[in-house]
Amino acid sequence: MRHDVIDFAHNLGLFEDYWSPRVIAEMNDYQFKLVKLRGEFVWHDHRDTDETFILFDARLRIELCDRQVVLEAGEMYVVPKGVEHRSCTEGETSLLLIEARGVVNTGASGGALQAANDRWV
Amino acid sequence: MRHDVIDFAHNLGLFEDYWSPRVIAEMNDYQFKLVKLRGEFVWHDHRDTDETFILFDARLRIELCDRQVVLEAGEMYVVPKGVEHRSCTEGETSLLLIEARGVVNTGASGGALQAANDRWV
Repeated sequence: MRHDVIDFAHNLGLFEDYWSPRVIAEMNDYQFKLVKLRGEFVWHDHRDTDETFILFDARLRIELCDRQVVLEAGEMYVVPKGVEHRSCTEGETSLLLIEARGVVNTGASGGALQAANDRWV
Repeated sequence: MRHDVIDFAHNLGLFEDYWSPRVIAEMNDYQFKLVKLRGEFVWHDHRDTDETFILFDARLRIELCDRQVVLEAGEMYVVPKGVEHRSCTEGETSLLLIEARGVVNTGASGGALQAANDRWV
Protein backbone atom coordinates (compact mmCIF):
# COMPACT_ATOMS: atom_id res chain seq x y z
CA MET A 1 0.00 0.00 0.00
CA ARG A 2 1.25 3.45 -0.91
CA HIS A 3 1.02 6.47 1.28
CA ASP A 4 1.95 9.19 -1.17
CA VAL A 5 0.08 12.06 -2.73
CA ILE A 6 -1.22 10.79 -6.08
CA ASP A 7 -1.38 13.08 -9.11
CA PHE A 8 -4.00 11.82 -11.56
CA ALA A 9 -2.55 13.53 -14.66
CA HIS A 10 0.97 12.32 -13.93
CA ASN A 11 -0.17 8.73 -13.50
CA LEU A 12 -2.34 8.85 -16.62
CA GLY A 13 0.83 9.73 -18.52
CA LEU A 14 2.53 6.50 -17.42
CA PHE A 15 0.47 4.11 -19.57
CA GLU A 16 -1.28 4.15 -22.89
CA ASP A 17 -3.37 1.02 -23.34
CA TYR A 18 -7.14 1.17 -23.32
CA TRP A 19 -9.50 -0.85 -21.10
CA SER A 20 -6.62 -1.79 -18.82
CA PRO A 21 -7.19 -0.34 -15.35
CA ARG A 22 -4.17 0.57 -13.22
CA VAL A 23 -4.44 0.69 -9.44
CA ILE A 24 -3.16 3.94 -7.96
CA ALA A 25 -4.36 3.67 -4.35
CA GLU A 26 -6.27 1.53 -1.88
CA MET A 27 -8.70 2.49 0.85
CA ASN A 28 -9.69 -0.36 3.16
CA ASP A 29 -10.93 -3.10 0.78
CA TYR A 30 -11.40 -0.73 -2.14
CA GLN A 31 -9.16 0.22 -5.00
CA PHE A 32 -8.81 3.43 -7.00
CA LYS A 33 -7.98 2.67 -10.62
CA LEU A 34 -7.15 4.89 -13.56
CA VAL A 35 -8.30 3.66 -16.94
CA LYS A 36 -8.32 4.96 -20.49
CA LEU A 37 -11.28 4.11 -22.65
CA ARG A 38 -11.86 4.25 -26.39
CA GLY A 39 -14.79 2.72 -28.21
CA GLU A 40 -17.25 0.27 -26.69
CA PHE A 41 -16.80 -2.09 -23.78
CA VAL A 42 -18.75 -5.34 -23.23
CA TRP A 43 -22.09 -5.56 -21.48
CA HIS A 44 -21.59 -6.80 -17.94
CA ASP A 45 -22.64 -6.33 -14.35
CA HIS A 46 -21.10 -6.71 -10.91
CA ARG A 47 -23.40 -8.91 -8.86
CA ASP A 48 -22.16 -7.97 -5.42
CA THR A 49 -20.94 -4.41 -5.59
CA ASP A 50 -21.65 -0.93 -6.83
CA GLU A 51 -19.04 0.66 -9.10
CA THR A 52 -18.06 4.33 -9.21
CA PHE A 53 -16.92 6.33 -12.24
CA ILE A 54 -15.29 9.77 -11.91
CA LEU A 55 -14.58 11.46 -15.22
CA PHE A 56 -11.55 13.70 -15.85
CA ASP A 57 -12.01 14.72 -19.45
CA ALA A 58 -14.01 14.24 -22.62
CA ARG A 59 -17.29 12.38 -22.37
CA LEU A 60 -18.42 8.92 -21.33
CA ARG A 61 -21.73 7.33 -22.19
CA ILE A 62 -22.80 4.49 -19.93
CA GLU A 63 -25.51 2.39 -21.50
CA LEU A 64 -27.91 0.72 -19.11
CA CYS A 65 -30.71 -1.69 -20.01
CA ASP A 66 -33.44 0.91 -20.00
CA ARG A 67 -31.57 4.17 -20.58
CA GLN A 68 -28.17 5.74 -20.89
CA VAL A 69 -26.31 8.29 -18.82
CA VAL A 70 -23.71 10.71 -20.15
CA LEU A 71 -20.84 11.90 -17.98
CA GLU A 72 -18.81 15.01 -18.75
CA ALA A 73 -15.51 16.01 -17.12
CA GLY A 74 -15.98 16.78 -13.43
CA GLU A 75 -18.88 14.40 -12.98
CA MET A 76 -19.35 11.06 -11.28
CA TYR A 77 -21.80 8.19 -11.49
CA VAL A 78 -22.40 5.10 -9.38
CA VAL A 79 -23.59 2.00 -11.24
CA PRO A 80 -25.63 0.01 -8.71
CA LYS A 81 -24.71 -3.62 -8.12
CA GLY A 82 -26.41 -6.07 -10.42
CA VAL A 83 -27.19 -3.46 -13.08
CA GLU A 84 -25.99 -4.40 -16.54
CA HIS A 85 -24.02 -1.63 -18.19
CA ARG A 86 -21.61 -0.86 -21.00
CA SER A 87 -19.19 2.06 -21.34
CA CYS A 88 -18.94 3.79 -24.72
CA THR A 89 -16.79 6.70 -25.86
CA GLU A 90 -16.42 8.63 -29.09
CA GLY A 91 -12.72 9.36 -28.65
CA GLU A 92 -10.28 8.72 -25.82
CA THR A 93 -11.56 9.24 -22.29
CA SER A 94 -9.73 8.96 -18.97
CA LEU A 95 -11.43 8.20 -15.71
CA LEU A 96 -11.08 7.08 -12.14
CA LEU A 97 -12.81 3.87 -11.12
CA ILE A 98 -13.52 3.01 -7.51
CA GLU A 99 -14.19 -0.67 -7.00
CA ALA A 100 -14.06 -3.27 -4.28
CA ARG A 101 -10.78 -5.19 -4.43
CA GLY A 102 -11.08 -8.27 -6.63
CA VAL A 103 -13.78 -6.97 -8.95
CA VAL A 104 -13.21 -8.14 -12.52
CA ASN A 105 -13.66 -5.40 -15.11
CA THR A 106 -15.92 -7.51 -17.33
CA GLY A 107 -17.92 -9.06 -14.47
CA ALA A 108 -18.90 -12.61 -15.47
CA SER A 109 -18.99 -11.71 -19.17
CA GLY A 110 -15.28 -12.33 -19.79
CA GLY A 111 -13.95 -11.90 -23.32
CA ALA A 112 -10.97 -10.24 -24.92
CA LEU A 113 -11.26 -7.07 -22.85
CA GLN A 114 -11.03 -8.82 -19.47
CA ALA A 115 -8.08 -7.22 -17.67
CA ALA A 116 -5.75 -8.53 -15.00
CA ASN A 117 -6.46 -7.31 -11.49
CA ASP A 118 -4.06 -5.62 -9.07
CA ARG A 119 -1.95 -4.12 -11.81
CA TRP A 120 -0.47 -0.96 -10.33
CA VAL A 121 0.48 1.97 -12.50
CA MET B 1 -29.84 6.45 -2.74
CA ARG B 2 -29.52 8.52 -5.90
CA HIS B 3 -28.82 7.19 -9.32
CA ASP B 4 -28.07 10.37 -11.21
CA VAL B 5 -24.97 11.80 -12.78
CA ILE B 6 -23.38 14.07 -10.18
CA ASP B 7 -21.67 17.31 -11.19
CA PHE B 8 -19.11 18.31 -8.55
CA ALA B 9 -19.02 22.03 -9.43
CA HIS B 10 -22.81 22.32 -9.48
CA ASN B 11 -23.14 20.67 -6.09
CA LEU B 12 -20.35 22.77 -4.59
CA GLY B 13 -22.41 25.81 -5.55
CA LEU B 14 -25.34 24.65 -3.43
CA PHE B 15 -23.79 25.30 -0.02
CA GLU B 16 -21.34 27.73 1.51
CA ASP B 17 -20.45 26.66 5.02
CA TYR B 18 -17.00 25.33 5.86
CA TRP B 19 -16.16 22.02 7.53
CA SER B 20 -19.67 20.74 6.89
CA PRO B 21 -19.53 17.73 4.54
CA ARG B 22 -22.48 17.09 2.23
CA VAL B 23 -23.16 13.59 0.94
CA ILE B 24 -23.56 13.47 -2.84
CA ALA B 25 -23.50 9.72 -3.50
CA GLU B 26 -23.17 6.30 -1.90
CA MET B 27 -21.34 3.21 -3.07
CA ASN B 28 -22.05 0.10 -1.00
CA ASP B 29 -21.28 1.17 2.59
CA TYR B 30 -19.27 4.20 1.56
CA GLN B 31 -20.22 7.81 1.07
CA PHE B 32 -18.89 10.51 -1.25
CA LYS B 33 -18.98 13.90 0.43
CA LEU B 34 -18.18 17.38 -0.80
CA VAL B 35 -16.71 19.73 1.74
CA LYS B 36 -15.34 23.27 1.78
CA LEU B 37 -12.41 23.98 4.04
CA ARG B 38 -10.89 27.20 5.30
CA GLY B 39 -8.31 27.46 8.05
CA GLU B 40 -7.36 24.65 10.40
CA PHE B 41 -9.34 21.62 11.45
CA VAL B 42 -8.87 19.65 14.70
CA TRP B 43 -6.38 16.86 15.18
CA HIS B 44 -8.18 13.51 14.98
CA ASP B 45 -8.00 10.01 13.61
CA HIS B 46 -10.41 7.35 12.42
CA ARG B 47 -9.62 4.17 14.31
CA ASP B 48 -11.30 1.69 11.98
CA THR B 49 -11.10 3.11 8.50
CA ASP B 50 -8.91 4.81 5.94
CA GLU B 51 -10.11 8.17 4.60
CA THR B 52 -9.68 9.47 1.06
CA PHE B 53 -9.22 13.09 -0.03
CA ILE B 54 -9.57 14.17 -3.67
CA LEU B 55 -8.77 17.83 -4.28
CA PHE B 56 -10.56 19.98 -6.88
CA ASP B 57 -8.86 23.31 -6.48
CA ALA B 58 -6.41 25.38 -4.45
CA ARG B 59 -4.17 23.57 -2.00
CA LEU B 60 -4.63 21.42 1.07
CA ARG B 61 -1.99 20.67 3.66
CA ILE B 62 -2.61 17.57 5.73
CA GLU B 63 -0.50 17.55 8.86
CA LEU B 64 0.47 14.14 10.19
CA CYS B 65 2.35 13.41 13.40
CA ASP B 66 5.74 13.06 11.75
CA ARG B 67 5.34 15.01 8.51
CA GLN B 68 2.92 16.84 6.32
CA VAL B 69 1.61 16.23 2.81
CA VAL B 70 0.46 18.93 0.40
CA LEU B 71 -2.26 18.25 -2.14
CA GLU B 72 -2.81 20.39 -5.21
CA ALA B 73 -5.84 20.30 -7.53
CA GLY B 74 -6.10 16.97 -9.33
CA GLU B 75 -4.44 14.98 -6.59
CA MET B 76 -5.63 12.49 -4.01
CA TYR B 77 -4.37 11.15 -0.71
CA VAL B 78 -5.45 8.29 1.53
CA VAL B 79 -5.00 8.82 5.28
CA PRO B 80 -4.52 5.34 6.75
CA LYS B 81 -6.78 4.28 9.60
CA GLY B 82 -5.52 5.20 13.04
CA VAL B 83 -3.21 7.93 11.77
CA GLU B 84 -3.74 11.28 13.46
CA HIS B 85 -4.11 14.11 11.01
CA ARG B 86 -5.28 17.68 10.64
CA SER B 87 -6.35 19.53 7.48
CA CYS B 88 -5.11 23.10 7.00
CA THR B 89 -5.72 25.58 4.18
CA GLU B 90 -4.54 29.09 3.42
CA GLY B 91 -7.74 30.17 1.67
CA GLU B 92 -10.89 28.30 0.68
CA THR B 93 -10.46 24.77 -0.66
CA SER B 94 -13.05 22.34 -2.02
CA LEU B 95 -12.62 18.62 -1.98
CA LEU B 96 -14.25 15.23 -2.24
CA LEU B 97 -14.08 12.94 0.77
CA ILE B 98 -14.67 9.21 0.52
CA GLU B 99 -15.49 7.64 3.84
CA ALA B 100 -17.22 4.61 5.27
CA ARG B 101 -20.81 5.46 6.19
CA GLY B 102 -21.07 6.62 9.81
CA VAL B 103 -17.58 8.08 10.10
CA VAL B 104 -17.58 11.23 12.22
CA ASN B 105 -15.56 14.08 10.72
CA THR B 106 -13.69 14.78 13.95
CA GLY B 107 -13.16 11.12 14.92
CA ALA B 108 -13.28 10.85 18.72
CA SER B 109 -11.94 14.38 19.17
CA GLY B 110 -15.34 16.11 18.99
CA GLY B 111 -15.48 19.87 19.46
CA ALA B 112 -17.16 22.77 17.71
CA LEU B 113 -16.32 21.53 14.22
CA GLN B 114 -18.00 18.14 14.62
CA ALA B 115 -20.56 17.92 11.79
CA ALA B 116 -23.80 15.99 11.50
CA ASN B 117 -23.64 12.86 9.39
CA ASP B 118 -25.83 11.90 6.43
CA ARG B 119 -26.48 15.48 5.45
CA TRP B 120 -27.08 15.41 1.71
CA VAL B 121 -26.36 18.40 -0.46
